[in-house]
Amino acid sequence: MVSKDMLAKVKGGSAIRKLFEEGAELGRKYGPENVCDFSLGNPNVPAPESVKRAMIDVLEMTDPNKLHGYMPNVGFPEVREAIAADINKKHGTALGARNIVMCTGAAAGLNVVLKTLLDPGSEVLAFAPFFVEYGNYVSNHGGVMKVIPPNFPDFRPDPAALAACISPKTRALIINSPNNPTGIVYSEDDIRAIASVLEAKQAEYGTDIYLISDEPYRELVYDPQTVVPYVPAFYRNTVVCYSWSKSLSLPGERIGYVCVPSEVSDFGDIMDCLSVATRIMGFVNAPSLQQLSVIRCLDDKADIAFYKRNRDMLCEGLSAAGLEFARPDGAFYLWVKSPIADEQRFVEMAKKHLLLLVAGSGFACPGYVRLAYCTAPEVIERSIPKFKALMEDVKKEIG
Amino acid sequence: MVSKDMLAKVKGGSAIRKLFEEGAELGRKYGPENVCDFSLGNPNVPAPESVKRAMIDVLEMTDPNKLHGYMPNVGFPEVREAIAADINKKHGTALGARNIVMCTGAAAGLNVVLKTLLDPGSEVLAFAPFFVEYGNYVSNHGGVMKVIPPNFPDFRPDPAALAACISPKTRALIINSPNNPTGIVYSEDDIRAIASVLEAKQAEYGTDIYLISDEPYRELVYDPQTVVPYVPAFYRNTVVCYSWSKSLSLPGERIGYVCVPSEVSDFGDIMDCLSVATRIMGFVNAPSLQQLSVIRCLDDKADIAFYKRNRDMLCEGLSAAGLEFARPDGAFYLWVKSPIADEQRFVEMAKKHLLLLVAGSGFACPGYVRLAYCTAPEVIERSIPKFKALMEDVKKEIG
Repeated sequence: MVSKDMLAKVKGGSAIRKLFEEGAELGRKYGPENVCDFSLGNPNVPAPESVKRAMIDVLEMTDPNKLHGYMPNVGFPEVREAIAADINKKHGTALGARNIVMCTGAAAGLNVVLKTLLDPGSEVLAFAPFFVEYGNYVSNHGGVMKVIPPNFPDFRPDPAALAACISPKTRALIINSPNNPTGIVYSEDDIRAIASVLEAKQAEYGTDIYLISDEPYRELVYDPQTVVPYVPAFYRNTVVCYSWSKSLSLPGERIGYVCVPSEVSDFGDIMDCLSVATRIMGFVNAPSLQQLSVIRCLDDKADIAFYKRNRDMLCEGLSAAGLEFARPDGAFYLWVKSPIADEQRFVEMAKKHLLLLVAGSGFACPGYVRLAYCTAPEVIERSIPKFKALMEDVKKEIG
Repeated sequence: MVSKDMLAKVKGGSAIRKLFEEGAELGRKYGPENVCDFSLGNPNVPAPESVKRAMIDVLEMTDPNKLHGYMPNVGFPEVREAIAADINKKHGTALGARNIVMCTGAAAGLNVVLKTLLDPGSEVLAFAPFFVEYGNYVSNHGGVMKVIPPNFPDFRPDPAALAACISPKTRALIINSPNNPTGIVYSEDDIRAIASVLEAKQAEYGTDIYLISDEPYRELVYDPQTVVPYVPAFYRNTVVCYSWSKSLSLPGERIGYVCVPSEVSDFGDIMDCLSVATRIMGFVNAPSLQQLSVIRCLDDKADIAFYKRNRDMLCEGLSAAGLEFARPDGAFYLWVKSPIADEQRFVEMAKKHLLLLVAGSGFACPGYVRLAYCTAPEVIERSIPKFKALMEDVKKEIG
């Protein structure tokens, strides 16, 4: 006897997980070196050497009772202070330890924030396409996910579409820039437009609408002129969820933070609830060694140029094959228009060429597919002729 | 605008957390060396040296993309295999990687198990007194916590009381041996008696009732003749939640596992749901460095003799002061009868002597207090005259 809701989630399945299993099966059949797997966002860039040094130094130099023991649920005070100081240096803010909650990666951060904010039936919005797990995170805590329809063809946030989706029950909007799956980086104007709609609706309904900025890809931008705006500077009720999973290539280590500026409505209650949520949801605290280690690496980054080279090589290859997409400014995803209307069929056709892509339907945006280009460069090189052959099949099919 | 349910939890507060804050305040006022804090289960025994060596070796010898990258949500296959082999060696079982899910400590394990098992309104039982967070874990996933009344004065599980609490909605019973807060270790006869009631009720109602064995204190027993039974050997539908928090003194690192024997009803569905629950609740996976490190320390333990010495010293001192309690066989808690009926008043009186105890009401069992004796031995030494003075106050009060 198992939870009916969970069983439905298993049977519905994660498209990405199914692909992962099919990929393994194809690898056994045709040799793993012949499969080009663009399905998973698992970095192929190693963590910077400084992470290893930091972890070993922390292990060598810290009293084990402190290093491995419980600390306050929100994290070591000196870790939170160091992170606040780093944000202050980068964005001219005046944050302190009181504004930071350490969390077990951004996925944990989003969950404790939603547990804190949502009443049964509270609505949470996201611009399609969006990371498929948001819907699960919202329903975990009794909320209802409302999808803002995609803004074809450039997928920038559409203020009018946002305004049309807000109701008195809207408790939060989740944004994600640089974006998974589109690779778009929101400009200051984009953020201003969102802020202006949210402020007007807060005033209209007399509610607070929190803007949850999910920022695991903040450091992953490719052009020096691309600025990732600091969202709280544009909208008072902003909560930031950050993770070192991508910037330091540590996704398995589960370490991130939630930042809540003091100006946010009900700041004190929110911080108290975040601490309780971290405890009762079973996180208890972010892993202690990881907390003490990341603050020694605040100025370090994984090799971003690696992703840029991958992006350029893949964009060139897909263009040559005749596929349509917007060149991404950040993150490590390419969001490609399916050359046939049914993108699930296109994903199946791609599999015949041992190309693993993720259907856009899983991101609330059919008609597109996502490619994660955090792969080894050889995978991209080998994929180009396969994409050309795939497009030949497509031409035959559509005549 | 914050979740009403969470706000109520904050305002209700955790008695232990409030004590922690009051203890810090008393420390500032009277000097931390004068406060005897028995409120928190934070080990004062350092992790064995082998943990440090294991972590450094893993960092030195593992490819960083593997070490810090995503693995399957349920954990590294070789880690799960090593843990299954260790259980097989200790208990003569035939488990494999398929039976193990790595989790972010036992608190995470309990949450993913409850997310997997509970439908809205499903009932979960526990014998009072029990760890206060069980109620929160159950309500996180729409379940209802049902308390089996305490079995005075020895607090052994009472089969008749258990039977009286089971309904067709009962989905699980959580047990915890060695026990927090009583220090009791359930015998084979205790487990057999529980199993017999559960089997009869399963047959009567045509349901599955899962026995969730929460085992963070499994290794913490003090007498060579004390055996901690391997619960799945006595009841088919058993799920074990284990953590290295206490056995290796690593509570801040958040590492444990869930073990589900293949014979458990709906085994395949449960394993699928545990994997999805780990992902969607935001754990994603147990921290990767911790996973790869603990399997190098499966035969190691923190210094259990330290706790035994603490137990003996504290038992002797409290007896001399005239307090009543059962000498604990395991864990690091002493469960003491309040000498006045209102144990919250007793806790307040103790604070005047700078003794921090936790009221039994928080464990669904008023009239008792809990002392965590995982403190430094000096704290226990200093506490003895304070307990004597406290008991003088009590005598004056009750005349």
